[in-house]
Amino acid sequence: MKLPETPYYAVIFISELRENASDYGKWAEYMVKLAEDQPGFLGIHSVRDNQGITISYWESESAIHAWRTHAEHQLAQKLGKSDFYRYYKVEIARVERAYEWWNSAEKD
Amino acid sequence: MKLPETPYYAVIFISELRENASDYGKWAEYMVKLAEDQPGFLGIHSVRDNQGITISYWESESAIHAWRTHAEHQLAQKLGKSDFYRYYKVEIARVERAYEWWNSAEKD
Repeated sequence: MKLPETPYYAVIFISELRENASDYGKWAEYMVKLAEDQPGFLGIHSVRDNQGITISYWESESAIHAWRTHAEHQLAQKLGKSDFYRYYKVEIARVERAYEWWNSAEKD
Repeated sequence: MKLPETPYYAVIFISELRENASDYGKWAEYMVKLAEDQPGFLGIHSVRDNQGITISYWESESAIHAWRTHAEHQLAQKLGKSDFYRYYKVEIARVERAYEWWNSAEKD
């Protein structure tokens, strides 16, 4: 994703899956696609080893609120509690400063 | 980590390693240990697959500034550019709201 102008908002989602969260991957993939279509969506990064960290970026707190209350996302949140996660943490943060760096030998 | 009272600060560090970043693991581990000893440090989460996401949490922006300018951390930052990373992004964010959830069947 291109670095947005600050300030923008980040939703930090840190999670641990249950052992038998078999439909999780399908739902996670669908939620990323759905998030990308929402107003005010800026980008997403998702990495998983023992824990998962997903950071989605948004233009405003109201965009985050709209996404949180989106009907299909709410269904996914319910499944998250009933079937997928043993733990999660959500943090809503305002990004004040951001910068990025590429190794010049490898930059496209 | 126990959830701190908001507001607190997060440094989101997203990175991609070069193929031959052989000393990276040792340095990364040492930097986590060193960060944990700094004033104002609250916690850290780190996950890596193709990308790495490390989120460190701090009491204040001045604690983040002190850590950024810590001599050994500065050496690590130089090695990061010369030897380890092909890309990284840093975001400084103020956490406004946070909550966590455990599956009650699995909570300790």
